[in-house]
Amino acid sequence: MSIDPFFTQEERDAVYKVIQARRDIRHFIPNRTIEPKTLAHILRAAHQAPSVGLMQPWRLIHIHDPELRRQLQAEAERERLATADVLNTRRDAFLKLKVEGIGECAELLIMVMAPDDGTVLGRRTLPREMAISSCACAIQNLWLAARAENLGLGWVSFFDPHVVSKLLKCPNTAEPLAILCLGPVVEFPPAPLMTIEGWREGKLLDAILYHDHYGKEPVPPEGC
Amino acid sequence: MSIDPFFTQEERDAVYKVIQARRDIRHFIPNRTIEPKTLAHILRAAHQAPSVGLMQPWRLIHIHDPELRRQLQAEAERERLATADVLNTRRDAFLKLKVEGIGECAELLIMVMAPDDGTVLGRRTLPREMAISSCACAIQNLWLAARAENLGLGWVSFFDPHVVSKLLKCPNTAEPLAILCLGPVVEFPPAPLMTIEGWREGKLLDAILYHDHYGKEPVPPEGC
Repeated sequence: MSIDPFFTQEERDAVYKVIQARRDIRHFIPNRTIEPKTLAHILRAAHQAPSVGLMQPWRLIHIHDPELRRQLQAEAERERLATADVLNTRRDAFLKLKVEGIGECAELLIMVMAPDDGTVLGRRTLPREMAISSCACAIQNLWLAARAENLGLGWVSFFDPHVVSKLLKCPNTAEPLAILCLGPVVEFPPAPLMTIEGWREGKLLDAILYHDHYGKEPVPPEGC
Repeated sequence: MSIDPFFTQEERDAVYKVIQARRDIRHFIPNRTIEPKTLAHILRAAHQAPSVGLMQPWRLIHIHDPELRRQLQAEAERERLATADVLNTRRDAFLKLKVEGIGECAELLIMVMAPDDGTVLGRRTLPREMAISSCACAIQNLWLAARAENLGLGWVSFFDPHVVSKLLKCPNTAEPLAILCLGPVVEFPPAPLMTIEGWREGKLLDAILYHDHYGKEPVPPEGC
């Protein structure tokens, strides 16, 4: 069997390496830029994501205006404090975590899910779930491409979508899903920051891989 | 600046290659198997996905029972016909498309979103959207890993989640998001099947990349 294009062991190793090395980054080197050609490659990777019925619901807004960046950062900070208030016993521990690098990252991109275009194929029963999934796959492609370019990406979800929607003059039914911080970093942590900072442990693969039927659900941690 | 692990141009090329070569596959070679070691590598890649607050909401159910596979295929077929009925003028064209390979693929996996574990960090305002996104990122990792192994994957979303949930004995608040068909394929199409079959054209990247504010929304096609 000949498969075109074929992947060699070396190429396969690179794919597994980038999947393993990708991290959610909140610490960026300030005052840096990204080569326009590099950014174009990363954005093309995002646009090569799968989408149900080829609806491609992802819209990317590249933020250039420094004042708009400041407003987005202020919104993330407001939401960070609102989150602290509901974390009760872990409030202080949470406030010590750095959760976003909006002010320092080289480039800022906002992922917005487009207004529903009415695509039926493959999403008659799960229309919203499939549109969100397509946007998330585009972000994951963007993330892996960035990591392969030795750049970090952070997916910031600390915001009220209505506030961000208004700041970016989105149509009423469009939905911001992510503030994406992209740029050069000092280091890539060897494990997820949540684990390194002692916030939460990851699950073992065996604990969430079931056979024929849904198995025993892992016990959720408290106060996360 | 030294970044660990660093990605070379060759590794970067492999990452871009897999992102570009990944396709939604519905045509599998029947009666094949996948090496357990290969499947383990692919599943580990899925489990290395990002998740908000490290909640890891993805649950993967590996289907071994042939009768269960038949029931899942029958559910996809029921939904395919239900979709045809709402596509009106494009009904006949739709019915000519092959939309799933559940019966032929080597391995069948179901992605189920776990019951909400109450994670607050990073999902106070978008709890459901962020959990779905994490599951989708895991599927995208799985998809790219499979392609690097020269295997095809098809994300089937033709099903009623309540029916699949019942078949797999999921908890009431768990939600099946994808029937994933995985296995050896005859070929990887050079473009999305939706385009090759003349169903729909993809958008240009420039049409969905905006600057500072949401731009002009592309005109949606009719009858998709």
